[in-house]
Amino acid sequence: MDLLIENAEQIVTCHTRGRKFKAGKHQSEIGLLKKSSILVENGKISWVGKKLPRGILRKNLLKIDARGKCVLPGFIDSHTHSVFAGDRADEYSMRIKGSTYEEIAASGGGIRSTVKAVRKASKKELKDLAGRRILTSMCFGVTTIEAKSGYGLSAAAEIKMLEVISELRKELPVDIYATFLGAHAFPDEKTREDYIDEIMFRMIPAITEKKLAVFIDAFCEKNYFSVNETKGIFLQGVKYGLTPKLHTNQFYSIGGIKAAIECGAISVDHLEVMKPSDVSALKDSGTIACLLPAVSYFLDIPYAPARKLIESKIPVALATDFNPGSAMSENIQLTMSLAVQLLKMNIEETFNAVTINAAAALGVSDRIGSIETGKQGDLLIFDTPAYSDILYHFGVNQLWKVIKRGRVIC
Amino acid sequence: MDLLIENAEQIVTCHTRGRKFKAGKHQSEIGLLKKSSILVENGKISWVGKKLPRGILRKNLLKIDARGKCVLPGFIDSHTHSVFAGDRADEYSMRIKGSTYEEIAASGGGIRSTVKAVRKASKKELKDLAGRRILTSMCFGVTTIEAKSGYGLSAAAEIKMLEVISELRKELPVDIYATFLGAHAFPDEKTREDYIDEIMFRMIPAITEKKLAVFIDAFCEKNYFSVNETKGIFLQGVKYGLTPKLHTNQFYSIGGIKAAIECGAISVDHLEVMKPSDVSALKDSGTIACLLPAVSYFLDIPYAPARKLIESKIPVALATDFNPGSAMSENIQLTMSLAVQLLKMNIEETFNAVTINAAAALGVSDRIGSIETGKQGDLLIFDTPAYSDILYHFGVNQLWKVIKRGRVIC
Repeated sequence: MDLLIENAEQIVTCHTRGRKFKAGKHQSEIGLLKKSSILVENGKISWVGKKLPRGILRKNLLKIDARGKCVLPGFIDSHTHSVFAGDRADEYSMRIKGSTYEEIAASGGGIRSTVKAVRKASKKELKDLAGRRILTSMCFGVTTIEAKSGYGLSAAAEIKMLEVISELRKELPVDIYATFLGAHAFPDEKTREDYIDEIMFRMIPAITEKKLAVFIDAFCEKNYFSVNETKGIFLQGVKYGLTPKLHTNQFYSIGGIKAAIECGAISVDHLEVMKPSDVSALKDSGTIACLLPAVSYFLDIPYAPARKLIESKIPVALATDFNPGSAMSENIQLTMSLAVQLLKMNIEETFNAVTINAAAALGVSDRIGSIETGKQGDLLIFDTPAYSDILYHFGVNQLWKVIKRGRVIC
Repeated sequence: MDLLIENAEQIVTCHTRGRKFKAGKHQSEIGLLKKSSILVENGKISWVGKKLPRGILRKNLLKIDARGKCVLPGFIDSHTHSVFAGDRADEYSMRIKGSTYEEIAASGGGIRSTVKAVRKASKKELKDLAGRRILTSMCFGVTTIEAKSGYGLSAAAEIKMLEVISELRKELPVDIYATFLGAHAFPDEKTREDYIDEIMFRMIPAITEKKLAVFIDAFCEKNYFSVNETKGIFLQGVKYGLTPKLHTNQFYSIGGIKAAIECGAISVDHLEVMKPSDVSALKDSGTIACLLPAVSYFLDIPYAPARKLIESKIPVALATDFNPGSAMSENIQLTMSLAVQLLKMNIEETFNAVTINAAAALGVSDRIGSIETGKQGDLLIFDTPAYSDILYHFGVNQLWKVIKRGRVIC
C-alpha cells in the first residue's frame, strides 16, 4: 500500500532544493517546508508539496494526518558496534569510583572481556542481543545503521560477527551496512605481525568472498594500529573492494587522517584531538568527519572541534558509536543533544549530520538522507509542530511514527 | 490486592539497615540485597527478605516474578516547574545560534513569555499540559514529584497554578507536593515593593488559607530577590505554616544559603556557584543540598561542586528542575546520568540522591525514599540484573514496572 503523509506542520527535508548536494557546503540549511504533504509510492518518495496532485486520493493509499507534527528523514547511525556479548556494567561502576584502565584491565575488564564473551557466544546469542539493540536504535528514529565487527579478533569470530549482521539485515526493517574491523585491537594469542598478516591475507579475502562487508575500518592510535599498519590493511581492503573508514585522532594526532584520505576513506571518525594540519588535510578531501560526542561524554575526554570543522566547510556527520566500552547508548537523539549542547553545533547542522551527511558517510546520499523525489521513503514523524522542539525538549523521545520504505514500522 | 515481588536479582533499598537514617551520613551506601523478595500490604511494605514468611502464598496476592531484575525505591523529583504554558523552542534555537538573553528577551522570550502564556491559559489547559508532563516524569520512574507556582506573578495566576497542582494530586497516581514560588521574578506591572507586599500580605495568606502549598520558595539571586527580601518572604511564609526551600547560588553567591538556613529551609537548590563559607554554612545544618545538573548542561553554566558537598557530609539530592527556560526535560534518569558523568557522583550516591535524600528534601523520608518495612510501597522494577546498568546503559529507559502504593501503574 502506498502512503500519503498529509499536512505536516513542518517538513525538514535536509535537501538544498535546486542545488546539487555537496556535503559540507550547506550544512546549516535544512530545506524547511511548512504545511506540506509527502507521497511515497513503491517505497520511494514520488511527490512532496503543498497541493496534492489531481487524482491522488485513490483507494489503497494509507493516509496519515500529520497536522501539528514534524516530518524528518529517517536518522542514519553511521558508526556503531551493536554486535557484542558480555556485560561491562561493573566495569563502569569501578571507573566511576576512580579505577584506572589498568586496574579495570587487570580485573578482567576492557575490550578483552568483550572479545572473550563474543568468541564464547553462539551466533544465535549474538544475533538475539544485536537484533534487540538495533530495534532500540530504531525506536529513537534510526532507519539505517552501520555495524562493525572487531570483537572477534580471529577469522572465525570476526566472520561470525559479520554473519550476524548479514542475517539481521534480512530480518529487520532497518538497512544495515557492515564494516570489517579486524584491526580493532591485537588478540593476546598472536604476535603483532602474525595478526596483521591474518587480517590482510586471511580475513579480508574470506570476508569479501562471502560478501560480508562493504567497509573496512581500523583503530589508528598510539598503542593500537600505526599509520603504516593502517595503510597496509586499508590498501589490501581496497584491493578486495572494501571502502575504508577510520577510527582516528581519539587520543592522539598521529597522522591517521592524512593516511585515510590517501587510501580513499569515505569517513574519518572520532577526531577529538585535531591539529591544524589534520583540519587542512580534511578540507576539500570529500571525506566525511564523523563525530561521536557520546564517547567524550562517557569517557570524559575532550570533545571534537565541531565548529572549526564546520567553519572549514568540512562535512560533519554524527553517530552514537554505540559500544560496551566507551558509549553504551543506542540513543541517537541523545547524541544529537550532546552535539548541540557540548559540540556547539546548531540545530540545523545537527539534523543534517544524522541524515544527509551520515548518508554520505555510508556512500548512499543518492538514495537516503533527505526528503526529495526519488529517494527511499524513510521518514520520521515527531509529535511536535516545531523541529527545534526535538532537541529543546531533550531526553524525551517525541517520535510518533517510524516509516521505512513507505511502511510504518514503529 | 496485595503485591509480592519475588526473587529480584538486586534490591537497592537505599536503607542503611540497623542505623537510623541521617541524611548525608551514608550517602555512598545503598543497602543492597540480592535474590530477595518484597511484600506490600495495604499499600505499605510489610516484609523484605529472602525466605517468604509462612502462609504468605494466599489468594488475592499479585505476584511479580523479578528474576534477573532490579528493584529500587520510586524516584522522587523534588524540584520541578511542571506547570506552565507556551512554547519556547524557538528561543532555544536562537540561543544555540548565539543570541544573548537580552536579544531573546527583546524578541519576547524568556520567563516573561511563559508568564504571559500562563496568565492567558485556562485552568483546564494548564492542567492538561502539566498532567501529561507528570505522566512523562512517571515513565522515567518518578512516583513523587514537587511542583512550583511562579509563572503567574499575580495572586490570581499563582493561585490558578497551585489549584492545578492540587487537582492533579487527586487525579494522578503520583504524589505531588506544591511549592508557592511567587518570588520567582518581578511582574512588569508592579513596583518591586508593591509586588513583595502582594506576596507577603495577599498571596501567602490566601494560598495557605486554601491549603494550596506546603513549601515556599524564592529566587535569591543578583537582579532577582535580595537576601533581605527573601528573608522577609520566608519568615512570613513560616508564620503561615509553609516550609522554605530556596533557589540560590545559581549565578552568584550572595548569602542566600545562610539566610535560608536561618529561616529553617528544608533544602537549598542549584548551588552551581559556591564559596567555602557557603559549604561551611550548610555543614551540619540538616538542610539538603539539591543539585540540578540538567540546568548546567542546558544553559552551559558551571556544575555544582557535588564532590565537595558529599565529602563535607552534606546530604545531596538531585532533581530535574524541569522548566521551559533552563531545563526542558522530565527525564530524571538523564539527570542521574549527568550527575555521574559531569558532577562526578558515584552510582550509589546518585541513587540515594533521587530517593532517600530527595525524600528528606520534601520532609517525607519517614514515609518514602527507601525499601524497608513500614514505608509506602513505591517501587521501580528495572529489566536488568545489575543496578549499575541503569546508569551505564545511558539514554535508554530500562524501567519495566512502576509501582505506587503497591499498585502497578505503568
